Amino acid sequence: MNTVFIHNIGQLVTVDAARMTVDNPLGIIQNGAILFENGKIAWVGPATEVNRTDYPNAQWVDARGRVLLPGLIDSHTHTIFAGDRANEFEMRLQGKSYLDIAQAGGGILKTVQATRQASPEELSALTLQRLKRMLALGVTTVEIKSGYGLDFDSELKCLRVLQAMRGEAPVDIVPTYMGAHDIPPEYQGRTDAYVEQLCEVQIPAVAAQKLADFCDVFCEQGYFDVAQSRRILETARKHGLKLKLHAEEFCDLGGAVLAGELQATSADHLLHVSDEGIAALKAGGTVATLLPGTAFYLRIKDYAPALKLLAVGVPVALATDFNPGSCVIDNLQLIMALACLQMNLPPVDVIKAVTIHAAKALDLHHDRGSLTVGKRADAVLFDIHSYNELLYRVGSNLLNDVYVAGQHFSRTQLEAQCQPVT
Amino acid sequence: MNTVFIHNIGQLVTVDAARMTVDNPLGIIQNGAILFENGKIAWVGPATEVNRTDYPNAQWVDARGRVLLPGLIDSHTHTIFAGDRANEFEMRLQGKSYLDIAQAGGGILKTVQATRQASPEELSALTLQRLKRMLALGVTTVEIKSGYGLDFDSELKCLRVLQAMRGEAPVDIVPTYMGAHDIPPEYQGRTDAYVEQLCEVQIPAVAAQKLADFCDVFCEQGYFDVAQSRRILETARKHGLKLKLHAEEFCDLGGAVLAGELQATSADHLLHVSDEGIAALKAGGTVATLLPGTAFYLRIKDYAPALKLLAVGVPVALATDFNPGSCVIDNLQLIMALACLQMNLPPVDVIKAVTIHAAKALDLHHDRGSLTVGKRADAVLFDIHSYNELLYRVGSNLLNDVYVAGQHFSRTQLEAQCQPVT
Repeated sequence: MNTVFIHNIGQLVTVDAARMTVDNPLGIIQNGAILFENGKIAWVGPATEVNRTDYPNAQWVDARGRVLLPGLIDSHTHTIFAGDRANEFEMRLQGKSYLDIAQAGGGILKTVQATRQASPEELSALTLQRLKRMLALGVTTVEIKSGYGLDFDSELKCLRVLQAMRGEAPVDIVPTYMGAHDIPPEYQGRTDAYVEQLCEVQIPAVAAQKLADFCDVFCEQGYFDVAQSRRILETARKHGLKLKLHAEEFCDLGGAVLAGELQATSADHLLHVSDEGIAALKAGGTVATLLPGTAFYLRIKDYAPALKLLAVGVPVALATDFNPGSCVIDNLQLIMALACLQMNLPPVDVIKAVTIHAAKALDLHHDRGSLTVGKRADAVLFDIHSYNELLYRVGSNLLNDVYVAGQHFSRTQLEAQCQPVT
Repeated sequence: MNTVFIHNIGQLVTVDAARMTVDNPLGIIQNGAILFENGKIAWVGPATEVNRTDYPNAQWVDARGRVLLPGLIDSHTHTIFAGDRANEFEMRLQGKSYLDIAQAGGGILKTVQATRQASPEELSALTLQRLKRMLALGVTTVEIKSGYGLDFDSELKCLRVLQAMRGEAPVDIVPTYMGAHDIPPEYQGRTDAYVEQLCEVQIPAVAAQKLADFCDVFCEQGYFDVAQSRRILETARKHGLKLKLHAEEFCDLGGAVLAGELQATSADHLLHVSDEGIAALKAGGTVATLLPGTAFYLRIKDYAPALKLLAVGVPVALATDFNPGSCVIDNLQLIMALACLQMNLPPVDVIKAVTIHAAKALDLHHDRGSLTVGKRADAVLFDIHSYNELLYRVGSNLLNDVYVAGQHFSRTQLEAQCQPVT
């Protein structure tokens, strides 16, 4: 029986719809308290309503007026890969094009080569190190896509590594199968044949072995068109996988319309989404997952239309898109700052976008994403006294403590675990 | 006798002009080694040239192929202040103007009020906490300006706090007197009278008590014009202070021409610097200190012309401008990323800008800013294998160890010190 009572919480930011009002859009309880029992939230309310003698066996934690939030959720990452592409960063600053970089042996296929060659043990160690850094920033759930294997054995190798880590990593992992991340070298110029192989061989195997919760496709000019994306997603749904889609990152191809029509759980990127696409997302109940780190990293001036999406009632999630090429940013707090400063998103919407809306983007909003009785005891305590300090103080990690399913990690402990073993 | 030999350094990034070539612009020694003796650098070279038996009493540290750089230098900050202005961040995102914010009781005068009311002990504790976070990011020297006191007693209170911290803080502090940061409420509409008071009372007192190394002025429309700035700086020089100038942040007022003419050590901001201003900086041997965090934080689209300044041979330094209003960013590593991504500065120039050029901006380049025999043993070890990973991996603090005048701090130790005392 693991019982923790955190009290004297200056702002208990519940993000619980039942507590939200016009004047209190995040459902904040001033001077709050929260009870974790056996990994779940058992009670939430004002500290004044707690009678300490009723819980003689609880561990009492004094938050000393600081701010508690739901554990942050990074709902779009490509965290499992080997190798690095640091040299490409410099080439890109020098004005080299994607083609120049590919011809110099760089680009996504460099990562595919390194990932194919890596052993499961290497991939597991690399991924675990990355997850520890994310946890030290307050992230308790991370979606991770395959898609740097791009052949049957390598894709399954990556997903099996994630499956094995799922119970053991300190962070909860949501695995997404993304064989349709790029066209592998073996299928250059034969995209339809690759789609055929995905639908006939890979997807059935992934689903049968329960290696992924979601299937995702890179629907983009030069990658997978709308018809190919539709075929892959419909096959995935038939096999019981839930759907995500990379849509309208570089142009308006119609991916958002497809995502809405298929009632995909989320459509991601959306820099060039049309009004028709926005209407489709709204009608389909699809979450818009925006990735401002990628625009920032690729130095694209126009970000996704976050305010427009919110205005029509599409839930907006924010995620890192962490990957070794187009967004080497594993810091969800920095993404939150970019959302404010580059997309003009108000702090309230930014907080929702990395908690309840991010949970919805993973179809986990019934289990996490708010501090609500019955949900997983995922919570983060920051050394601030008002939630908006989290946005105001850009580039400082002010986290003190993380609870993952009720298990406590101190910041000091987490940072120590991020250091290389000497 | 404190002797440390760090060996097996994958890239020893000396930033030493004597080792720089066209093909090796940062003077990198592959598989290097470095000797610290009594707080100074005593030897630098290839690890293969070290004979371990010659140093029987040294502590040997195996860098295991990682990257060692000179300690980073943040040469422009406003780190000593009380209070916070988190609510203004949200107001600014809502489109509120500077005037709206001031009328709601916000803006710089809110910080002045809080700083005037704070005790020296409070200011010291706040500043120390901030410096610890900076050190955990690899910053070993921090310039700190007064300028939130804006009256004789409060300005001297802040400078005395810095003086008392100077020997005790883990980071080395360079104090700058900046009474001319704004016009205090007592002198509204009487800027000339305030300048008179600065020149006749404050500057002589600061200089006589040796409370600052530099004098700085906010030369800007609505603050101090070029004639007033000249009078303040000439008085400061007469009293033995070195010169800095906030120039052309919001418009081209002619501050850069003044800075060059006075051979100021640095001119800072420079978003609107003219060609004439650039020529003056070049002629005056003045360092251009650029502060991209402020443009980012204030959502200004056009950054300072870093490449243009470099092209004509003006040394470019980068600093945070950390302050409670216009740039609440204490993370110099994030500023380095912004310089790459928003100003197109190549990684090589970014590294120089926070080491040797930042040292020059503090007139300390003979003492630090490169890993050169005889200089202070300030160095940072990162968990990377190529210096460009430091820029490529945005938002991750990959620091492992810091040496300040030869004294070792591990990352784990530093992060523990940043946590609030429980």
